[in-house]
Amino acid sequence: MLFPTILVGADVNGRPNYCTVGACGVVNLEPMLYVSLKETHYTTTGIKASGFFSVNLPSPDLAEKTDFCGVVSGKTTDKSELFIPFYDEAGRAPMIQECPINMLCKVTQTILLSGFAMFLGEIVAVYADEKGLTDGQIDPVKINPMVMMYPSYFELGKVVGTVFKDGNDYKKSLGI
Amino acid sequence: MLFPTILVGADVNGRPNYCTVGACGVVNLEPMLYVSLKETHYTTTGIKASGFFSVNLPSPDLAEKTDFCGVVSGKTTDKSELFIPFYDEAGRAPMIQECPINMLCKVTQTILLSGFAMFLGEIVAVYADEKGLTDGQIDPVKINPMVMMYPSYFELGKVVGTVFKDGNDYKKSLGI
Repeated sequence: MLFPTILVGADVNGRPNYCTVGACGVVNLEPMLYVSLKETHYTTTGIKASGFFSVNLPSPDLAEKTDFCGVVSGKTTDKSELFIPFYDEAGRAPMIQECPINMLCKVTQTILLSGFAMFLGEIVAVYADEKGLTDGQIDPVKINPMVMMYPSYFELGKVVGTVFKDGNDYKKSLGI
Repeated sequence: MLFPTILVGADVNGRPNYCTVGACGVVNLEPMLYVSLKETHYTTTGIKASGFFSVNLPSPDLAEKTDFCGVVSGKTTDKSELFIPFYDEAGRAPMIQECPINMLCKVTQTILLSGFAMFLGEIVAVYADEKGLTDGQIDPVKINPMVMMYPSYFELGKVVGTVFKDGNDYKKSLGI
């Protein structure tokens, strides 16, 4: 299976902490994301305490540090100085300046699943690096996020289709 | 945000139906996937009735048909002959022969979220095309799944890192 590569940020015991997960995505058409973390994870403690988490999309230049955040726990290693954090007044979770996209999420529901806490979060703030935009819109190629498909991280490759266009073209070709 | 591009398969009223979603992923370390679909979707009816769905990973040669399945509802268009379906005795959901990876999932929990049904499914059967394997392991480059990041579908690009290796190398470089 393939996953987005994202860094979850949370303040834990008053310090920024980050954790890499593939268990992140959308669940409906609301501005909402989920992240799912082991209940025993250090980051989980912080999200439970603050009610906020951030979702940050690292580009390939951060591959090493990103994988590091999936390997090493904040319980044993202070990761607070690994990135430059910044905050939004809407809620307390560190966002990563080096990542071209940051989303601050407010927990609206927590679902427990076999030792994991699945946090559903309303997106309350979005930051996008201007360098990642084309005509004011997020440009996937400029953002260049990483895809995780074991055993590798990949950057985006060639465009192979256009969402909601190719299907309509195909529909027309069928005469429906 | 970026998403995996997957085709959800379900029998609806006795016929195979398919729906394209980005709302699919993992939630814990169990062999389990979720898909989230509008409660009013045609496919949703089928999953509720049968208790099974399939997750199929299309490659770029299926980009048009894949987008079509996200544009057109089974309510108005019979999609049963769009792909060659096959079934597993573990449960009743159509899998797509043209896709290099197919996973049959048995619904274990349904969570309702703002008009969407999030189906959590235990993976009860996996099919992988031999052409997608290297030394018996799934090879992401050979599978060549599509990533959805609006407004485009992308194929996988260059390998930019190795999961659980780069982080350990970085850890060593820090002397921890």
